[in-house]
Amino acid sequence: MNALYLPLVAGIISTLFAFVMLKRTLGYSPGNDKMQQLSRYIQEGASAFLEEEARKIFLVAVIIAAVLGVIFQSFKYPIALLFGALVSELAGVIGMYAATRANTRVAAGAEKGLSSAFKVAFSSGSVMGLAVAGFSLTGLALLMLIFKDSFLFENITDLSRAFGSISYIDGVMIISSYSLGASMIALFDRVGGGMYTKAADMSADLVGKIEEHIDEDDPRNPATIADNVGDNVGDVAGLGADILESYVASVVSAIVLAIFMKFADHGTMTETQYYGLILLPVLIAGVGVLASLVGVLVVANMKTKDAQKSLSFGNFFTGGLVLVSVAVVIGIAAPDYPFKDSFIIGPGFVSKWRLFFAIASGLVAGIIISKLSEYYTSDQYKPTKKLARDTQSGVAINITGGLALGMGSTIWPVITLALAILGAYWSAGVYGIAIAALGMLSFVGYIVSVDSYGPVADNAGGIAQMANLDPKVRKLTDRLDSVGNTTAAIGKGFAIGSAAFAALALIVSYIWGAADTANEIVNNPIINLVEPYTLIGILIGSMLPFFFTSLLIKGVSDTANLMIVEIRRQFKENPNIKTGDAVPDYKRCIEITTKGAVSRMLTPGVVAIASPFIIGLLFGRSAVAGLLMGGLASAIMIALFTANSGGAWDNAKKYIETGEFGGKGTPTHEAAVVGDTVGDPLKDTVGPSMDILIKLMSVVSLVFGSIFPAGPFFM
Amino acid sequence: MNALYLPLVAGIISTLFAFVMLKRTLGYSPGNDKMQQLSRYIQEGASAFLEEEARKIFLVAVIIAAVLGVIFQSFKYPIALLFGALVSELAGVIGMYAATRANTRVAAGAEKGLSSAFKVAFSSGSVMGLAVAGFSLTGLALLMLIFKDSFLFENITDLSRAFGSISYIDGVMIISSYSLGASMIALFDRVGGGMYTKAADMSADLVGKIEEHIDEDDPRNPATIADNVGDNVGDVAGLGADILESYVASVVSAIVLAIFMKFADHGTMTETQYYGLILLPVLIAGVGVLASLVGVLVVANMKTKDAQKSLSFGNFFTGGLVLVSVAVVIGIAAPDYPFKDSFIIGPGFVSKWRLFFAIASGLVAGIIISKLSEYYTSDQYKPTKKLARDTQSGVAINITGGLALGMGSTIWPVITLALAILGAYWSAGVYGIAIAALGMLSFVGYIVSVDSYGPVADNAGGIAQMANLDPKVRKLTDRLDSVGNTTAAIGKGFAIGSAAFAALALIVSYIWGAADTANEIVNNPIINLVEPYTLIGILIGSMLPFFFTSLLIKGVSDTANLMIVEIRRQFKENPNIKTGDAVPDYKRCIEITTKGAVSRMLTPGVVAIASPFIIGLLFGRSAVAGLLMGGLASAIMIALFTANSGGAWDNAKKYIETGEFGGKGTPTHEAAVVGDTVGDPLKDTVGPSMDILIKLMSVVSLVFGSIFPAGPFFM
Repeated sequence: MNALYLPLVAGIISTLFAFVMLKRTLGYSPGNDKMQQLSRYIQEGASAFLEEEARKIFLVAVIIAAVLGVIFQSFKYPIALLFGALVSELAGVIGMYAATRANTRVAAGAEKGLSSAFKVAFSSGSVMGLAVAGFSLTGLALLMLIFKDSFLFENITDLSRAFGSISYIDGVMIISSYSLGASMIALFDRVGGGMYTKAADMSADLVGKIEEHIDEDDPRNPATIADNVGDNVGDVAGLGADILESYVASVVSAIVLAIFMKFADHGTMTETQYYGLILLPVLIAGVGVLASLVGVLVVANMKTKDAQKSLSFGNFFTGGLVLVSVAVVIGIAAPDYPFKDSFIIGPGFVSKWRLFFAIASGLVAGIIISKLSEYYTSDQYKPTKKLARDTQSGVAINITGGLALGMGSTIWPVITLALAILGAYWSAGVYGIAIAALGMLSFVGYIVSVDSYGPVADNAGGIAQMANLDPKVRKLTDRLDSVGNTTAAIGKGFAIGSAAFAALALIVSYIWGAADTANEIVNNPIINLVEPYTLIGILIGSMLPFFFTSLLIKGVSDTANLMIVEIRRQFKENPNIKTGDAVPDYKRCIEITTKGAVSRMLTPGVVAIASPFIIGLLFGRSAVAGLLMGGLASAIMIALFTANSGGAWDNAKKYIETGEFGGKGTPTHEAAVVGDTVGDPLKDTVGPSMDILIKLMSVVSLVFGSIFPAGPFFM
Repeated sequence: MNALYLPLVAGIISTLFAFVMLKRTLGYSPGNDKMQQLSRYIQEGASAFLEEEARKIFLVAVIIAAVLGVIFQSFKYPIALLFGALVSELAGVIGMYAATRANTRVAAGAEKGLSSAFKVAFSSGSVMGLAVAGFSLTGLALLMLIFKDSFLFENITDLSRAFGSISYIDGVMIISSYSLGASMIALFDRVGGGMYTKAADMSADLVGKIEEHIDEDDPRNPATIADNVGDNVGDVAGLGADILESYVASVVSAIVLAIFMKFADHGTMTETQYYGLILLPVLIAGVGVLASLVGVLVVANMKTKDAQKSLSFGNFFTGGLVLVSVAVVIGIAAPDYPFKDSFIIGPGFVSKWRLFFAIASGLVAGIIISKLSEYYTSDQYKPTKKLARDTQSGVAINITGGLALGMGSTIWPVITLALAILGAYWSAGVYGIAIAALGMLSFVGYIVSVDSYGPVADNAGGIAQMANLDPKVRKLTDRLDSVGNTTAAIGKGFAIGSAAFAALALIVSYIWGAADTANEIVNNPIINLVEPYTLIGILIGSMLPFFFTSLLIKGVSDTANLMIVEIRRQFKENPNIKTGDAVPDYKRCIEITTKGAVSRMLTPGVVAIASPFIIGLLFGRSAVAGLLMGGLASAIMIALFTANSGGAWDNAKKYIETGEFGGKGTPTHEAAVVGDTVGDPLKDTVGPSMDILIKLMSVVSLVFGSIFPAGPFFM
């Protein structure tokens, strides 16, 4: 267990460098007074939202923690849960702090040239990246060290008991609770932030652009600050919490599976094998964090001429570094004695290098899925070009065409995913699947840095516009921003792929965890698909992502409608706003969006947390297994469908704006704008929430699985 | 087995009455020359399409039959398959023959008043209704009588063999093949007809209404005949084949389950129990056919003042009659000796009356789901009213609102379905689920009569318009048509509910059928959800309905685009068309739609047939079980989502047209028209195809299940 000090130190180093990068970011020139003033508005808006949101989330977290404590009669699990939530929240706060202060500095940097602007943007993005990786790993390693006894080989001999018949393994509960805390923050951040950003965006556009004919990011628009705040809360805080959660979930599910292996292997597992398997995930995460740090530092200190090239170089460099270090870790730390066949370790696991193949299949799948979403959504390829061309037949054809494109775009990613799952499974069982997810996510520090850089560049553009800077500044930030869009698309492929792998690993962990006695988990557990409870679980599980989508879209459009009323009111009551002689009431708009998003975030969140709980207590563990699998499948489809439909609508519009099919001002362009607006909440609110919805449901099941009865409660 | 003569005679009586009603329909006055001429155009167009379609379908059917014959070294199964296809095709042909000749007669009748018009319309609809029920039941009873030996108690002792290791039961194969034949026709008819009708509709509207500003059903529009043909091929032939298939599938799956029971019951089943269970489904179908006939005759001979009331009365009357006769049949023929617990017969089956409860849960679920879809789509209730109100904010909000409405509308129907499945299962196991589906469908003769009546009324309105009849005629046919819309909505609830039940029964039958040896099927078979092959099956299965939807939407819009080009060409090249001095080239439009729909029907059809086959051969039977369950869940969601989104968009538009929110000619109305157009292919092409997609996949698996290996072929 002393090997845990390695990831602990790696986590602490990453955390320290997050603060170093923050200091560096704050050291750059913040631009003129007007710019600083605008940035301050955004900072205040973002903080106000985060605070309001955090208050609600922690209320829910405390309730769940209390339930956990009461059921299992233990302080350890509630503490782990709150700790996981805190770690995720803190990473979000510091990342957002950096992002909302970097926007004006990027704009100021852009006055000097691309390289300076890029440096500021990437440095500030890396604060979030390094914090996400550092905080979460430090937290996990610390937790395992503090509760060391619960993970010792000799102590995993029998199952603890609560409520008499409820059996569970202490170590599993501790780290699962930690993961649950992180998941809850991620869901609420994604859902709340996603609704905030799109409600602000849609209402600002609908009144500003269409009714008042003023440009995007015009300071006369009362919603413009809210719109810029939205970029931060949705794309920085939401994304950071989301990826942190995936990362934690994949490490935790791999460890949990390794612990269960001790039972599944009929007690033939040696001490070396055991420690090898439970420590490997944390060690891989540890070297991944260090490799990411190196990648971040290299890119942050480059003199760049082409942001795209620098980031791609960073991708390959960091990815390669991770792969090499993972290979080294496997070579040193992984056990390769033969295991008995089981779902967890796969058919005839004989060589440790099979773990490397598992990781490789995950990585390859991630790359292919990314490329596929690029194919479906980029205007370089046939599907989006055809969508743009068909838009000439009007809005209805644009909408049905976009829907067809998105729904059809599920086929190849799903087949890729299925083959990769088989590849990882054949290599090293379900443990291999968990490790593959970890492989995709192990350069999380770098990925989040890149992903957070986009919204910062976007915001910088907003400030440049609002502060009336030289148009070339805006042009430059737009270039940085568009690079961000491309890298974000790649990130999405990895997000969906890793979520599918991590969720599968969690589901299987849940099934082991829900087994009733030690004896039951010695053999592979069986959830019979033919059993009616499994069947209805699958039905209800498949429905939930649809219902969830509906709640999110309604949340966005209801909040946007409130905003529309307010923006119209301000323009009407104070004509000086339109002439630029009066400052609009930005605050009021921010308050409305904040209140709207936070209040509408609760229902979807509670649905996600409560549904496995309710189904489990009513119909037993098979029903929950069905619920999770049905939910996973349905969530993946909706995630792919909404991401690709939305992306294609967006890019078809942009393609037409380059002058194709008549360009701006034509009915074709107008039709394309409608498609883009429809796609916005789909791709930016619904799509990203799907991954975390299903993972949260799986973690809830894993934590509470042991209290679910074997069948329906009344039979 | 002599009891089979009862359903045989019932089927023949129903068939005879179909011809009686046809003669009666043809006896009504066909109206003036112009009307007859228009009706002839429609007849020719419909026949041309049916012929073209049938040629392609039978090619596929012959190929599948040949494969079946070669694999199982038998002529029986291919013959049964082709026989099933033929029965379904014939029912479609005669129903369409009546419908396309009734349209002008309904218009002529409407000149005399509501009661006459209603009588013609309902009589012609009943031709299809009685033919569907009569043909399919006669066919099945005949088949079972001819191959009587394969169903005898003493002959269900061991499994037949083919290919050495492939084991299967002869009787199961015969009736499953029959069901497969009917399924194939249904899928192609639904998909082909659905694409035809919407492509014609959309293109006629987009060029006619929007570009040329001429009314619907204006004879100057070159697409108007194609549009009217579409109502027949989509809503009459497609619907008839679809419900016939559901009907056959539910009878067949119940019989198949009963046959497997002989093994599942560890050989303790008595001869009486066996015959009781296998004959009960056919007997229920038999009394259902007779009850439907009585209902049809009563309604067809009523002097009606209010079509809605007459049809509702018929519904309750026929439904009540069915329920009573089913109770009688159960009382007389069902066995009530205790069976051993098994999935097929459920936990502790002791009383035959449990079968009646199973049917009741199916019926109640069907009614609730119908009422729910009325709630979501009628402008009497909140959701559609809100959609209409929100449409004031523009097209984008109308579209996202409609999507949210449809996706959110999945929750209660799915929960209802889940509870009804449990109810039926607790009453009488999976056999109870199959019987419940049959209960919902047993008044199929009446249901199809009502459903086919709608499009006939619709067509009559078209002819009235085109032949320049008195506007009051059109008003009257519109009234009949709108009643048809309400009954169609109720029909949809039953269609989705019964499809879910029937598909579940088929899936479980498949799992039994795919078991490798007699020994394996003695106990409840197990498909482990945790097994990776099941998992990837679920993933791919969930994806297929999305992919299928995309193919259908593309088929509609591509065909519509070809039509748009042609319609524009005709108006441009011959200005006399617009002035009414020249007859447009209707035929050319019909040819384009026919060719477009038929050619685009093949890919989705082949995907549906081939996917279980390919997955089964590659990854084994667990993967197929996952494929079917994932596909079922996903298909149900998309069916509910598209039906309710489409219905709500349609009715929100109609609601606005009544003068709400400004009424016609406002931007709000324009936005609502776009929503309606988007919804059209969703609710009329995609939605209805989903049920049959999943049933076809299930039947293919049931027929070919015994050749699927236990695991992936290469391991």
